[in-house]
Amino acid sequence: MVQEEIRRRNAGALLRYVHLLGAVSRAELAERMGLNRSTIMALTTELTRVGLVHEELPTDTGRAGRPSLLVRPAADRFYVLAFDVAVDRLVAARVGLGGSILERRTAVRPRAGPDLHEVVEVLARFGRQLHRAAPPDAICVGVGASYCGMIRPGDGMVRFGPDLGWVDQAFGAELGRRLGLGLPVTVGNEAHLGAQAEQQRGAGVGFQNLIYLHGDVGVGGGIIVGGRLLGGDGGYGCELGHMVVNPHDGRPCGCGSYGCLEAEVGERALLDVAGRPAELFGREAIRSVTDDADRGDPAAREALRQIGDWLGIGVANLINLFNPGMVVFGGMLCDLYPGAAAQVRSRIARNVLPVARENVRLRTAALGDDATLVGAAELGFAPLLADPLGRPADTGRRAAGSCR
Amino acid sequence: MVQEEIRRRNAGALLRYVHLLGAVSRAELAERMGLNRSTIMALTTELTRVGLVHEELPTDTGRAGRPSLLVRPAADRFYVLAFDVAVDRLVAARVGLGGSILERRTAVRPRAGPDLHEVVEVLARFGRQLHRAAPPDAICVGVGASYCGMIRPGDGMVRFGPDLGWVDQAFGAELGRRLGLGLPVTVGNEAHLGAQAEQQRGAGVGFQNLIYLHGDVGVGGGIIVGGRLLGGDGGYGCELGHMVVNPHDGRPCGCGSYGCLEAEVGERALLDVAGRPAELFGREAIRSVTDDADRGDPAAREALRQIGDWLGIGVANLINLFNPGMVVFGGMLCDLYPGAAAQVRSRIARNVLPVARENVRLRTAALGDDATLVGAAELGFAPLLADPLGRPADTGRRAAGSCR
Repeated sequence: MVQEEIRRRNAGALLRYVHLLGAVSRAELAERMGLNRSTIMALTTELTRVGLVHEELPTDTGRAGRPSLLVRPAADRFYVLAFDVAVDRLVAARVGLGGSILERRTAVRPRAGPDLHEVVEVLARFGRQLHRAAPPDAICVGVGASYCGMIRPGDGMVRFGPDLGWVDQAFGAELGRRLGLGLPVTVGNEAHLGAQAEQQRGAGVGFQNLIYLHGDVGVGGGIIVGGRLLGGDGGYGCELGHMVVNPHDGRPCGCGSYGCLEAEVGERALLDVAGRPAELFGREAIRSVTDDADRGDPAAREALRQIGDWLGIGVANLINLFNPGMVVFGGMLCDLYPGAAAQVRSRIARNVLPVARENVRLRTAALGDDATLVGAAELGFAPLLADPLGRPADTGRRAAGSCR
Repeated sequence: MVQEEIRRRNAGALLRYVHLLGAVSRAELAERMGLNRSTIMALTTELTRVGLVHEELPTDTGRAGRPSLLVRPAADRFYVLAFDVAVDRLVAARVGLGGSILERRTAVRPRAGPDLHEVVEVLARFGRQLHRAAPPDAICVGVGASYCGMIRPGDGMVRFGPDLGWVDQAFGAELGRRLGLGLPVTVGNEAHLGAQAEQQRGAGVGFQNLIYLHGDVGVGGGIIVGGRLLGGDGGYGCELGHMVVNPHDGRPCGCGSYGCLEAEVGERALLDVAGRPAELFGREAIRSVTDDADRGDPAAREALRQIGDWLGIGVANLINLFNPGMVVFGGMLCDLYPGAAAQVRSRIARNVLPVARENVRLRTAALGDDATLVGAAELGFAPLLADPLGRPADTGRRAAGSCR
């Protein structure tokens, strides 16, 4: 019984490596997992039997001797549906085992207005289209969604979605119902998912302590501590956007307070400081400021300097608290950070204790705007990766049956 | 082999329960550990054989039927030496298995001046005295120390001790050498140890997400995330005292910057705002302010209100980031917090998102000024608790032999 449990756990660990690394030799799997080659062979044989991986000879090893077989995820056979409710768009995608985005649908999302049913309507339609377009033998193993708000981990309830004004909306349950695939929908906060995606597949691979800042209208955060996402008691931690950095002279924040980090470095702050008209908003408006700064426009450069100083205070505070190996800037901060980097680094030098900043690196998100969608897909894959051999090989098909 | 490893791990887990709970029935151990009674009996029999626990009949169970034996730690037989280099005192103690402080020595520490050798000289002398005074059959199983600075986890190097001006001082190694007991000295940061002690034996028992703020000259922090101390890449995380809360109008901080939390709420800030002369310092001076405030003195009350506002901003930021179940105030904040609580709570209400503050509790340290010393003792007990049956029963005695 213990042996059987170990075998299943090892199969999950092996499939996770293959899922994350894409194509990996048996020899490398043996080394990474600390198992001998015959155990690896037994595991890959089983995973091949149920169709989750393929094995193949490497094209050219450049070495003499029998080459180690390459193990690849069956991206064409097993997939998830991933959804992203971002501040400016609604995205649905079919993502194959291994993590590649096979197909996607995107709609522009109005800044204000859409209620739960309107959002779910669009996403569920996209989801059904993607599902129908999948090859006939492909199996849908899970559904994950990213939402720009505070999510109750157990059931995907949106506790607070500031930009849409949603409070206690049963997003996960409703999307699951409207998809009609017989699969639960796991929902996560967009910055949490972005952090996990960047750590697993992006700029932060190999980092056990990582801070991801996701900017759009506000600033969300995902913080990896010792390899795991910081949740806190209710799963509502990481709200770095509401860290007060400017208590006595701060800009009003959407949360009702003043001087929060997101009020000082969010989209509205940058556009105001850069002197842009109040009716402008969105990524294009932000890029016009960063482009002007690149061209040497003094007002745009000064705006980036001011915003960079506030961002630097926030990042310095976070480095003092978390002693991370890496800080990743995502969302619109991907665009903003390069022009603000000097100011951020100067604040870190001034405000972080030397031993805590010895080895920290600052990067923009390697997955760009897909970080949140990729993180949502991982939510969908989680049950399969936890126990790929736990169910008879045809259970997936039965789930697929109820899917279609 | 797997069975043997499980048995040893279970023995460690059982001894840890007995160590933390003091006296616990076999029935309760079975329930907490999810093991059956015969397994528990086998484990307690073995731990009794090597002298680590005693078993006894409960005095009065108030129930019919055969009572469950009580298992107690052998506090008289197994002990650690624990040391505390605090901002105003040097403490050494002999702490028995089970965590009770059996005997202690304390010296007043001058605010400035003592170098590594002077500090180690005093502590080593105390340690040898405590060791000689132990009963002849008692066994010293480890040594732990708390230090008010940033510690390199591996070797107890003080990377930065701001109040004594220590940089890269080999405190752990030197104390071990001067004690001459043949045991390594494990060193931790005082606020980290205070957090762990409060979570294991103090106000935060049962809380998996807890923030401990330790005030004296500065403000240190220990943050428990998912049951574990937040370390970060190098073990230098939790530096909440250098979170910038007042960036443009802040008081100078010992770190060279301005407006850090510790600059705004530390000892000097309180005494200055309360109008006390610059030559006053220390706990008595702080208590004179809080006593005056209790008696209704307007200047003292206004000082606590102002300091409480800065403290509240810091605590609100931490709650947004960590969504903890509890925040514990230790060191001089134990004295300061009651008079500042209203202001702290008002900041939390204003600055923390509602879902993240739904269930958070605020408390003063239940272990008071012993929190850091108790945490240091736990460092000393860690190897024994990790594997109490790992060595032959007489190894402890041999270590004791080399101890004396």
